[in-house]
Amino acid sequence: MLRWLTAGESHGPELIAILEGLPSGVPVSLAAMREDLARRKLGYGRGSRMKFEEDELSLSGGVRHGLSLGSPVALRVGNTEWPKWSEVMSAEPVETTERSRGRSAPLTRPRPGHADLVGMQKYDFDEARPILERASARETAARVALGSVARSFLSELGIRLVSHTLSIGPVRVPEDAPLPGPDDVAALDADPLRCFHAETSAAMVAEVDDAKKDGDTLGGVVEVLGFGLPPGLGSHVHWDRRLDGRLAQALMGIQAIKGVEVGDGFLTTTRRGSRAHDELFIGEDGIVRSTDRAGGTEGGMSTGTVLRVRAGMKPIATVPHSLRTVDVATGETATAHHQRSDVCAVPASGVVAEAMVALVLADAVLEKFGGDSVGETRRNLESYLAAIPEE
Amino acid sequence: MLRWLTAGESHGPELIAILEGLPSGVPVSLAAMREDLARRKLGYGRGSRMKFEEDELSLSGGVRHGLSLGSPVALRVGNTEWPKWSEVMSAEPVETTERSRGRSAPLTRPRPGHADLVGMQKYDFDEARPILERASARETAARVALGSVARSFLSELGIRLVSHTLSIGPVRVPEDAPLPGPDDVAALDADPLRCFHAETSAAMVAEVDDAKKDGDTLGGVVEVLGFGLPPGLGSHVHWDRRLDGRLAQALMGIQAIKGVEVGDGFLTTTRRGSRAHDELFIGEDGIVRSTDRAGGTEGGMSTGTVLRVRAGMKPIATVPHSLRTVDVATGETATAHHQRSDVCAVPASGVVAEAMVALVLADAVLEKFGGDSVGETRRNLESYLAAIPEE
Amino acid sequence: MLRWLTAGESHGPELIAILEGLPSGVPVSLAAMREDLARRKLGYGRGSRMKFEEDELSLSGGVRHGLSLGSPVALRVGNTEWPKWSEVMSAEPVETTERSRGRSAPLTRPRPGHADLVGMQKYDFDEARPILERASARETAARVALGSVARSFLSELGIRLVSHTLSIGPVRVPEDAPLPGPDDVAALDADPLRCFHAETSAAMVAEVDDAKKDGDTLGGVVEVLGFGLPPGLGSHVHWDRRLDGRLAQALMGIQAIKGVEVGDGFLTTTRRGSRAHDELFIGEDGIVRSTDRAGGTEGGMSTGTVLRVRAGMKPIATVPHSLRTVDVATGETATAHHQRSDVCAVPASGVVAEAMVALVLADAVLEKFGGDSVGETRRNLESYLAAIPEE
Amino acid sequence: MLRWLTAGESHGPELIAILEGLPSGVPVSLAAMREDLARRKLGYGRGSRMKFEEDELSLSGGVRHGLSLGSPVALRVGNTEWPKWSEVMSAEPVETTERSRGRSAPLTRPRPGHADLVGMQKYDFDEARPILERASARETAARVALGSVARSFLSELGIRLVSHTLSIGPVRVPEDAPLPGPDDVAALDADPLRCFHAETSAAMVAEVDDAKKDGDTLGGVVEVLGFGLPPGLGSHVHWDRRLDGRLAQALMGIQAIKGVEVGDGFLTTTRRGSRAHDELFIGEDGIVRSTDRAGGTEGGMSTGTVLRVRAGMKPIATVPHSLRTVDVATGETATAHHQRSDVCAVPASGVVAEAMVALVLADAVLEKFGGDSVGETRRNLESYLAAIPEE
Repeated sequence: MLRWLTAGESHGPELIAILEGLPSGVPVSLAAMREDLARRKLGYGRGSRMKFEEDELSLSGGVRHGLSLGSPVALRVGNTEWPKWSEVMSAEPVETTERSRGRSAPLTRPRPGHADLVGMQKYDFDEARPILERASARETAARVALGSVARSFLSELGIRLVSHTLSIGPVRVPEDAPLPGPDDVAALDADPLRCFHAETSAAMVAEVDDAKKDGDTLGGVVEVLGFGLPPGLGSHVHWDRRLDGRLAQALMGIQAIKGVEVGDGFLTTTRRGSRAHDELFIGEDGIVRSTDRAGGTEGGMSTGTVLRVRAGMKPIATVPHSLRTVDVATGETATAHHQRSDVCAVPASGVVAEAMVALVLADAVLEKFGGDSVGETRRNLESYLAAIPEE
Repeated sequence: MLRWLTAGESHGPELIAILEGLPSGVPVSLAAMREDLARRKLGYGRGSRMKFEEDELSLSGGVRHGLSLGSPVALRVGNTEWPKWSEVMSAEPVETTERSRGRSAPLTRPRPGHADLVGMQKYDFDEARPILERASARETAARVALGSVARSFLSELGIRLVSHTLSIGPVRVPEDAPLPGPDDVAALDADPLRCFHAETSAAMVAEVDDAKKDGDTLGGVVEVLGFGLPPGLGSHVHWDRRLDGRLAQALMGIQAIKGVEVGDGFLTTTRRGSRAHDELFIGEDGIVRSTDRAGGTEGGMSTGTVLRVRAGMKPIATVPHSLRTVDVATGETATAHHQRSDVCAVPASGVVAEAMVALVLADAVLEKFGGDSVGETRRNLESYLAAIPEE
Repeated sequence: MLRWLTAGESHGPELIAILEGLPSGVPVSLAAMREDLARRKLGYGRGSRMKFEEDELSLSGGVRHGLSLGSPVALRVGNTEWPKWSEVMSAEPVETTERSRGRSAPLTRPRPGHADLVGMQKYDFDEARPILERASARETAARVALGSVARSFLSELGIRLVSHTLSIGPVRVPEDAPLPGPDDVAALDADPLRCFHAETSAAMVAEVDDAKKDGDTLGGVVEVLGFGLPPGLGSHVHWDRRLDGRLAQALMGIQAIKGVEVGDGFLTTTRRGSRAHDELFIGEDGIVRSTDRAGGTEGGMSTGTVLRVRAGMKPIATVPHSLRTVDVATGETATAHHQRSDVCAVPASGVVAEAMVALVLADAVLEKFGGDSVGETRRNLESYLAAIPEE
Repeated sequence: MLRWLTAGESHGPELIAILEGLPSGVPVSLAAMREDLARRKLGYGRGSRMKFEEDELSLSGGVRHGLSLGSPVALRVGNTEWPKWSEVMSAEPVETTERSRGRSAPLTRPRPGHADLVGMQKYDFDEARPILERASARETAARVALGSVARSFLSELGIRLVSHTLSIGPVRVPEDAPLPGPDDVAALDADPLRCFHAETSAAMVAEVDDAKKDGDTLGGVVEVLGFGLPPGLGSHVHWDRRLDGRLAQALMGIQAIKGVEVGDGFLTTTRRGSRAHDELFIGEDGIVRSTDRAGGTEGGMSTGTVLRVRAGMKPIATVPHSLRTVDVATGETATAHHQRSDVCAVPASGVVAEAMVALVLADAVLEKFGGDSVGETRRNLESYLAAIPEE
C-alpha cells in the first residue's frame, strides 16, 4: 500500500509532500527530482511565472545517503516568491502593510472554469483567495516530485515511462505515427511541445502563436506510455482493483483534465469487434499480441504489452480577453480576475500525467509483489515472471 | 463513508452484494431493484442469455419493512441456470457426471479482449474458467442492484439520474440534440437503444442489424446525467477527493469501458479557451451558468448545474467470427472460445454506468453532509443550501 | 489488501459475509467452517439459544472445487429460526399477523450495557429492535466463518493460531502456567471453559454455577497465540501499519471487549525495565529470544516468536435480575428487556478473537509478501526467510 | 474523512506532518502547538535530550491568518541538533568527515525491546540506524502537533480532552480517586508526574528516584478523558466503525504501549454483570447514567457521558544497566547500545495519547456530521442534538 498526501498553497511558503509505503533501497536523488520539476515547466506557450518559479527542493525524511529507508519520504518545494506573499499568505494573523495592500485585496470575481465560486460556497468564504491558492496547478509540482521517486522505484524493476503530446487544440499527431520509446525522452523534452512528430510539432507552434495573437488559450491531449510492465498489475475481481480505473482516477484527478482514454479509447467505440481487439499468437518467449489497441490492459490488468493511457486537457480557463462573471461583493456583472498569461500548458501536463501513472503503478506493483526492500520486490517479481508458462 | 463489495461467479449459484454505510430510513424495495435489473437487459442487439437470465432477487440484511436500518444492506441475485452448472461450479469438490462433461471441459483457448490470458498468468490457472467466471459482465447485476439502493437515497435528497445512449459504433447523436431529463426515463427505456434522438436511434438499429449480418459486434458511448446535485460534492483540496476523478474510476471500472469524459470531454480539448468554459451570470436565485460545457464540475466539485459524464465501451470481444488465439494446452494457434451472441451491450451499459454514478454520488453526499438517518442527511443538506449567499 | 464486510441481523434470514483479496488456491471447506462455527458455541454457561442456533452454511462465490479462485469469497450463515421471525424482520412491508404479535412489540426499554439507547439516538429510531438486531453478537458467526478461511490461508504458510481462556470473573490461570500449542486445540475445545489449566478450569465451572445461582453474569479474559509467524509483519514506520495496533482494533472491535493486551500487557507496566524485555542470544539458526514478554512484537512488527494477544470481556449485559432503565415510550423508570440466559460467553469469545487475529494476520501477510495465488505468496515468504542473515 | 501522515527521522533535519480533511475556519495557532509540544516533554524522570530538544515549529500550508483553509494542513518540527547530524543523516551521499566519525559508526548491536533487530530483517539493513531513526518516540512530536490542531477543531464543537497519569511502575492512583476535569489541566501539567492525586504523585517521585538509583527504568498507565462528546460517534453496525476499536488502535499505535482499556477495562472482567454496567435514569434533560463504568461507549458508540480510555506503557527499553544482545557484525554476545537516559516517559505519553484520541474523535465527528467549514459541522451537530427526544 502506497499512500501520499500533498499540501501547500500556490503562494504559500512551500509545497510539502509525503509518500508512505515506499520500500527501502530505492535511489532517491534531488538532482533527478529537480530535473523532473524542470520538465514540468517545458512547453511552448508558457507564461512568465514558469520562469521565475525556480524550485527550491529539499528532502526532510525517508532518505539517507541517496537511498530510501522504508520510512515515509517527505519533501519540500519552496516558493522563491514567498517574501512578496508573506503577509498575504501568512499562517498567523498579521497586519497588512502598504507593501501587500494590492495583493491582499479580496478576490470577489470568481473565474469561470475554476474552482473559485463553488469552492467559496463549499468552504464558506466570501472571496476566492482561499480556494484558488490550493486549486492552482502549482500543486502539481509536489506530485511531480513524488512521481520522480515512484519512477525510480519502477525503474529498479525494469519499468520505464514516457509521455508525449498528442494534440494541441485541433492540431493532432496522425493516428499511424510511431510511438516514442524510453530512449526518446531527451528528444521529446527538446521539442517545443513535447511532440514526437516533427511536422505536427511545427503546426502546434503555429497554433499557439495564433491563439496568443488572439488573446486566447489552448488545450490538448497527452499520452503516457509504460514499458516493461509485468502482466497482472490490477485485477478483474473487483471494480476498484482494476488498473485502468485507478489510472483513470489518477489522470482525471489532474487539474483541467476532462477526458481519459486507455489504448485507442473512444476511437475503439467506433470500430467493429473484429478489428478492435488484440489477437494472440505464439512468439519466441510465449504468447504475444501483434497489436496494442487495448493500451496494454485486459480485464483491468496489465497484459505486459505497452501501457498506453491518455488525458485530455481543457484550454486554460484564465483567458486573456476575460470571461464574464459576477462580483460576489456587489452582485454585479464583471469580468474575471486574470492572473497569468499562459496560452497552453499541455506539454507540461504530460509530465504531471507521467507522475500520476508512476504513483499508480508503484502502488499496483506493491499490491501484487509486496516487499519492504527494493531487492525483495524485485526478487518476487522475477520469480513470478519465471513461473509463467511459456505458452 | 460508503463501502461496498460484490461477489459471485457468472455461472455460480448467485451474486452477493453488501453496501455498508447507508443511513437509516432509506426506502429499499425489491420491486425497484428488479426494475433496474430488468433495465440492465434492455437494448437491441442482446443475445439469448439475457432472456433466460431471470433474476431471483432477495434481501438478506439491512432492511426492515421497506426501510434501511443503518446496518449493511446485503442482497442476492440468484442464477436460474444454476442447476445446469452445479457440478462445474460447485464450491466443494465433486465428481463430474455425464451431465456436466461438456461444460466442465477446460477452457484453454483464452479469448482476445478478455481477462482470460492475463488472469490465468496472474492467478496461476491453466485454463480460463476461473477467470472468465468473475470477469464476466454478469457481475454488473450486483452493481445495478446496489446502485438502485443508492439512487433511492439520492432521490430522498432531490437528486435524480438519467442515462442514455450517445453512439453505437459510428452512429452518433448530433452534438446539438437536446438532453433527456428525469421525466424521460420511461421513453428512453422504451427506445430499442435507449437513445433520446429518434432519428439516430433508427440508424443505430440499422447498424446493429448490419453488424449482426456480418457476424460482428459493436461498441458505443453512453452518458449519465445528474439533476439536483448541490454545489460542493467532491473537492479541489486533494486529487483523490475530486468528484470527476472518482467518477472516472467508477466508469472506467465497468467491464469493456475504454474512455471516460466529463462534460464535453475531448471535444473541449479542441476548443479555444474563450468558448470552452461556462461564464457566470446573475440569475433569480443567485449566480447561474448559461452553458454546461464543463459537465457540472469545476475544480473537481459539483457546481449544481447538470452533472454530465460519459463512458465509451469497446465492441463486445466475443466476436462471432472468432478471433485468433493460442491453445495453452497445446501451444498451437486456435480460434477463441465463443460463448455468447450479443452484437451490442451499449444500452445496458448506460444502466450500469448510472448505478456506478449513483454509488459515487451517495458516497460524496455522505462525506460532505454526514448523517446516520436520511432525515439527518437531508436536514444537513438543506441547511447548507440555505446558508449559501444568493450572490 | 484484504477487505471484508459482514451483513445481517440477529433474527434476519441469514448473515452474509464477503472476503475480498484472498489469493487463489486456498483450501476452503464448508466442513472446516462449520467446525469453527460449532466451536463458537462452546463453553459452560451458555444459554439455550446456542443450542437451537444451528448454522446453515453455504458458499456463494469465490470458491470452486474446494479451492479459492482469487475472486471475492462470499458465504451465508442461515438462521434456522427465520420462519418465526419472517414477519417481524421482513425486508418488505408486511401486515403483522397474530403469530408475530408478541415478537413485534416495540422494544422501548433500552438495556444498559448495550447499544440500544445510543443506537436509537444516532439512527433516529423510537425503539431498540433496529439497533439490537445488528449489535447482537450473533454477527460474530460471520466473522468466525471468514476467520476460518483466513486461517486456512495462514495454515498454507505454516502459521497456526490457538485461543484459550485465561480468566472467568475473578478466577484466573496462574501466571506461570504453560501455554497451549497448536496440538492442544482439541483438548482446549473439550474443556468446558476452553481453559488449558485443569485446576483453574474446575474453579471456573464453580464460579459459573455460583453466578447462575445468583441470577448474575460473568466476564473474563481470553488469549490468542500465533505460531510460525515470520519476522516483519506490520511496521514501525507509520502508526497505522503497526501490527499491535491493528490487532488491538480487531479485538476491541468484538462485542463486549473492554481491554486489549499484547504480551504481558498491563503487567509489564509494573515491571522495571531490566526485567520487562526479551534479551537476545545466539541460537542454532540465528538470533533468538529466551523470553516472550513482549508477546511476539517489537516496534509494531512480529518478531517471529509466539504472538500473544489478549482480550478482556465484560460480563454479559443482559443480566437475569434485570438492570434499571427508562421506558422511552412513557418516560418512566423500568427494568430492561431480558432476552437470553447465558451466564458467560467468554470461551466462545476466544474463538471469535482467533478469527479476528487470523483476518488481521492474513492482511499483514499479503501486505508484506503480496501474491495472487497461495503458491506465489508462499514462494515470496520463503525467499524472504532464506535471505535473512543467520546472525 | 480525516487522513494524516507523518515523516522524518529522529536525527534528521525535521519532522513533517500533513493533516488532510480538516474543515475551514478552525483556529490554528503556532503558540498552541508549541505549548502542546512543551507539554510532551513534561514529567519527572526525563533525561537530558528533552531539554535541548527545543522545537522549531512552522506551518507550511492549510492555514491563513490563524484559520484553516480546508486544504491540507502541513507543519514542520525542526531538529535543533541537525548540524551535528547533517552528515550522518544526509539525504544525499556524503563523505563522512572526522566530525561525524563516531556518530556514523554502524549500530550492529540491536537493542532488545526495540524495533532494531526485526526492522533490520524486514527492511534488509545490516545495522540498526535506518530503523531506530524512525522507530524513535521523537516521531510523536509530529503527532502532538497534529493533535493540537484536532483539539482546536473539537474545542469549537464543545469537546475537551484531559490526560493524566494513573500509575508509575507499581505505584497507582486509588480506584476511588476523583477524575480531573477540563479545568484541571494546568494543575496536572504542573505536577511532576501529571498525576491528579497528590499523595500518589509523591510516591511516584520516590519510585522514579529509586529506579534511577538502580540504573533502571519504569512504565505506567495513562488515562485520557473526553468531555462534551455527543452520543453516537462510531457505530455498532460494522466492527471497524466502532469508536472503541479505533481508539484502541490509535493508543496501541503509540510507541511502547502494550495494553489499552476502555472505561474500567480489565477490572470490569472480574465484576459480575449486576455491578458492571451503567444503569439508566430520568434526568433533567433526558436519560442519564449515574455511573461511567463503560468509559463513555456502548455498542462501540460514544454515549455522551465522559469518554475514558487508558494506555499501558512498558518501561523504557533502553535500560542504563544494559540488556544482553548479539552483535550482528561479529555474531557474538554483546550489550545493547545505550542512547539516552530517561527513567520514565509515562507522563509525556499521556500528552501523546491525548493527541491520538483527538485525531480519532475529529475523524469520527466528521464521519457523523460532515461539514467543510467548522460552522457547517457545528450547525449539523447542534441540529442533531436538538432532534434527540428528551426521553
